[in-house]
Amino acid sequence: MPPSSSTIISAAMLAIGDELLSGRTKDKNIGHLADVLTMSGIDLNEVRIVPDEEPAIVEALNALRERYDYVFTSGGIGPTHDDITADAVSVAFGLPCEHDAEAMRLLGDMYRVREMEFTDARKRMARMPRGAKHITNPVSVAPGFIVENVYVMAGVPQVFQAMLDNVMPSLRTGSRILSQAVSSPFGEGDIGTPLSLVQKAHPETSIGSYPKYDGQRFSTEIVVRARDASALDAAAQDVASMIATITREKAARSA
Amino acid sequence: MPPSSSTIISAAMLAIGDELLSGRTKDKNIGHLADVLTMSGIDLNEVRIVPDEEPAIVEALNALRERYDYVFTSGGIGPTHDDITADAVSVAFGLPCEHDAEAMRLLGDMYRVREMEFTDARKRMARMPRGAKHITNPVSVAPGFIVENVYVMAGVPQVFQAMLDNVMPSLRTGSRILSQAVSSPFGEGDIGTPLSLVQKAHPETSIGSYPKYDGQRFSTEIVVRARDASALDAAAQDVASMIATITREKAARSA
Repeated sequence: MPPSSSTIISAAMLAIGDELLSGRTKDKNIGHLADVLTMSGIDLNEVRIVPDEEPAIVEALNALRERYDYVFTSGGIGPTHDDITADAVSVAFGLPCEHDAEAMRLLGDMYRVREMEFTDARKRMARMPRGAKHITNPVSVAPGFIVENVYVMAGVPQVFQAMLDNVMPSLRTGSRILSQAVSSPFGEGDIGTPLSLVQKAHPETSIGSYPKYDGQRFSTEIVVRARDASALDAAAQDVASMIATITREKAARSA
Repeated sequence: MPPSSSTIISAAMLAIGDELLSGRTKDKNIGHLADVLTMSGIDLNEVRIVPDEEPAIVEALNALRERYDYVFTSGGIGPTHDDITADAVSVAFGLPCEHDAEAMRLLGDMYRVREMEFTDARKRMARMPRGAKHITNPVSVAPGFIVENVYVMAGVPQVFQAMLDNVMPSLRTGSRILSQAVSSPFGEGDIGTPLSLVQKAHPETSIGSYPKYDGQRFSTEIVVRARDASALDAAAQDVASMIATITREKAARSA
């Protein structure tokens, strides 16, 4: 849908899985979702990671879905006993969790074609809260699902990404946050005070400062963000002028 | 401190930073903390990522510090205007946020030696809640700090990791969760039902199943976790037997 000029659409992510908290798996879905939402004009405002435990999932999901326009979950929708996301989402919404007829048909057809047994474990992947809408899974067929503003997707990154691609066109989007980056060869200590003055002079922008350390010294990437392009340009120009001034001053001092 | 045999020590992480939610920066600290805590016998039970906004930081921090033995934060303790973690932590604890005398001395000495100006921005890095203990920063001197059970550390991974190394020896640790991995050439659909029986037979273990997708087909890494070594061995052996049985059955069927 086309964005209206001042709409702000908010989102949260709930990543589900013991393996993310034990360090066994390094999450790749949070950063990907952040990239895709930012490009689309949806603001990712909060992320939580919880274990495969129903009370933890239910509590986090209910907190997030009340507060944000969209909630995206990853993980826990496979065929094994530790995949409890469908049950937990059902509990959160007070809905029965049952084998969805259309999902049973899709999965049954696939396993028939592949001459594989449609085991009870595989049938678990057809379970979802009653009335949930499907999210198509072009990688491995077993669908994700949507209940109200909650989008339940797989944890395997290839499947998560494919499901996300399928839902993005249906989401309401706001005005995109535009950004411009200005590199500073100086550390934050050199630029902190003048940069805070630039921020004060451009209150409709958000100026972030990201230190980098190469093992020897710090430099800084300054990122100006705004929904309005001219406000963005003006602030970014002031940041660039500020860097130029500091460069001149340092040169004069060492001359 | 030495672990007592049945102690469970819990922890949460609060990663702070707009850049993590915009996708600009891909977090590296969560996975590192998860690895280090797991190896040390501390259970990471929850992670939240929030933006550089005081109410969001305060709310998340107060929720987490009530619930878990330790809370580790990353980000927002640098010298620029968007570094507001010290202020937010002070608000959460109802403490004044002020320039710490010892931190001012450490930073002042460093900039004197380097013949660099100790700017107001750099002085911001000496601010912390009154009475906070320092976390030594061997990379760039500006300390992290500890208030009660909250450990406030830098967002730059090299600094976060160095600070974490410095605090780990002082933490209470519980009995480590041991783990054994068993590789399965079969997808979760093949192993889900028998695996749930193995899990039921070994209730004192936690058996996780992690699908992998190589672009063609799924395989599974099965990870058995337990605090007791003999319980772990018994469950892992049953998992391995289960895989062997499925292998034989498949061979017999295709023979």
